[in-house]
Amino acid sequence: MKKIHIIGLGLLGGSFALALKKALPDCDITGFDNRQKHLDMALEMGLIARQQEVPDRDTDVVILATPVDTLFDLLEKTLEQVGANTLVMDFGSTKEQLCRQMAAHPKRNQYLAVHPIAGTENSGPGAAVGNLFDGKVLIICEMEKTNIHLKGLAYDIFEAVNMKLRFMDPGDHDLHLAFVSHLSHVSSFVLGKTVLDKTSDEKNIFDMAGSGFASTVRLAKSSPAMWAPIFLENKKNVLAAMDSYIQHLSHFRDMIAEGDVDGLNQEMQEANKIRDILDIKE
Amino acid sequence: MKKIHIIGLGLLGGSFALALKKALPDCDITGFDNRQKHLDMALEMGLIARQQEVPDRDTDVVILATPVDTLFDLLEKTLEQVGANTLVMDFGSTKEQLCRQMAAHPKRNQYLAVHPIAGTENSGPGAAVGNLFDGKVLIICEMEKTNIHLKGLAYDIFEAVNMKLRFMDPGDHDLHLAFVSHLSHVSSFVLGKTVLDKTSDEKNIFDMAGSGFASTVRLAKSSPAMWAPIFLENKKNVLAAMDSYIQHLSHFRDMIAEGDVDGLNQEMQEANKIRDILDIKE
Repeated sequence: MKKIHIIGLGLLGGSFALALKKALPDCDITGFDNRQKHLDMALEMGLIARQQEVPDRDTDVVILATPVDTLFDLLEKTLEQVGANTLVMDFGSTKEQLCRQMAAHPKRNQYLAVHPIAGTENSGPGAAVGNLFDGKVLIICEMEKTNIHLKGLAYDIFEAVNMKLRFMDPGDHDLHLAFVSHLSHVSSFVLGKTVLDKTSDEKNIFDMAGSGFASTVRLAKSSPAMWAPIFLENKKNVLAAMDSYIQHLSHFRDMIAEGDVDGLNQEMQEANKIRDILDIKE
Repeated sequence: MKKIHIIGLGLLGGSFALALKKALPDCDITGFDNRQKHLDMALEMGLIARQQEVPDRDTDVVILATPVDTLFDLLEKTLEQVGANTLVMDFGSTKEQLCRQMAAHPKRNQYLAVHPIAGTENSGPGAAVGNLFDGKVLIICEMEKTNIHLKGLAYDIFEAVNMKLRFMDPGDHDLHLAFVSHLSHVSSFVLGKTVLDKTSDEKNIFDMAGSGFASTVRLAKSSPAMWAPIFLENKKNVLAAMDSYIQHLSHFRDMIAEGDVDGLNQEMQEANKIRDILDIKE
């Protein structure tokens, strides 16, 4: 029976507990969340068997699923608490800074840096769903730095919950994620704020918002406590992605101002190619 | 038996034909589309009973569901072709310019300016679905300028397909739509283009794109032939919405650059309020 401990019982941590219970029913899952409300809810929902602030020294795997700005301290503390045969993993959305901070850590080989590409705009244990990770990609960084037996156990667990493993350099990870994830969140948060600022005194104009608006602005419902740290940890790449986006927007704006129908059509036809890419994924 | 003629058998025209056939099965529905392929497909799918380029003089209702830059000429031509008891409506996404162009038309009272808030990112008759209009809002502009009997017939038809009628000034319509619809389309087209430009040589990075990216960029699949004319017809308001969006983005960018956690949190918490509004609609 494997002993698994999850710190941070929100959307990701809670959903992973549900997936584990289904895929590996003989696991003993303990956990902790420093928000008492989340901890109570996780117990009530049966996400964890019992709460425990400090993992046992013989825990097989500890998963850290807390905001990215808390991970380094928590990782250091956890590696002190556990024994020599425990693997500690974080689920953070940024990887470069954490891998750099961990580079010279004496227990570096007990750490595995992973990022499950899974989530929704909802947060907290109440948002946990058992199939969140099913069929999704898991990015693993610097796997060569992790003990072979410990990472083998991790791969077995991720494959048991039906994830697809991908291996990547942490710098490449953060750069690409800035474009395919962090920028989407920025654009959606800012779109929501722009429209609310314009229309705060006339709520009924949202009668005119169709399903397209709802889709584009969906990520504006996401948790600020999760996203502010991601934008700041990945500042360099997020700023580069935003600068490119703002430049593309200004160009599109100018084409509208000048009535450049051909230019607009060409730009939109190129954007249409996103259909081929998304359809392959679906 | 009412005679209804639909010009433009794409997503909107085709879906409206399907809704009519279900709600009012004894209608005689004819139609036309100047793209031979769309016309053939509409006939094959049974969207219309038969094709006809010119509506009969005794047609009860003619619906124009073509791109907005074609509507004024088509409206003038159609009003010449039909008799004095025919209502002509357009389904265009912009209303101010068309209402102004029609203001002094001798047959103004046979025209009703409407905009169904319904659509998907797909286009053409193959994208038509029978429930596209079900429960959706229909905005009607300058209803006081339309003959009372003709608009009564229109209201009956829209209520038969289960739409909710809303009445609005055409200028207000175009301003609000710029924010709750046209801006979403711009932001999504440009997001798609920005990400594709960055990553054109490494398609596999889309492995890292989660469901959030797919949602935010969904509208980038939309038809350029439909959207370029909307952006240009509603240029004044679309530019105002884009300028506000770019300004909000630059502010958000600066807060990230300066590490202003409190400012970022506040901005995102305000954007989170979009949840209340969208949840009411759902």
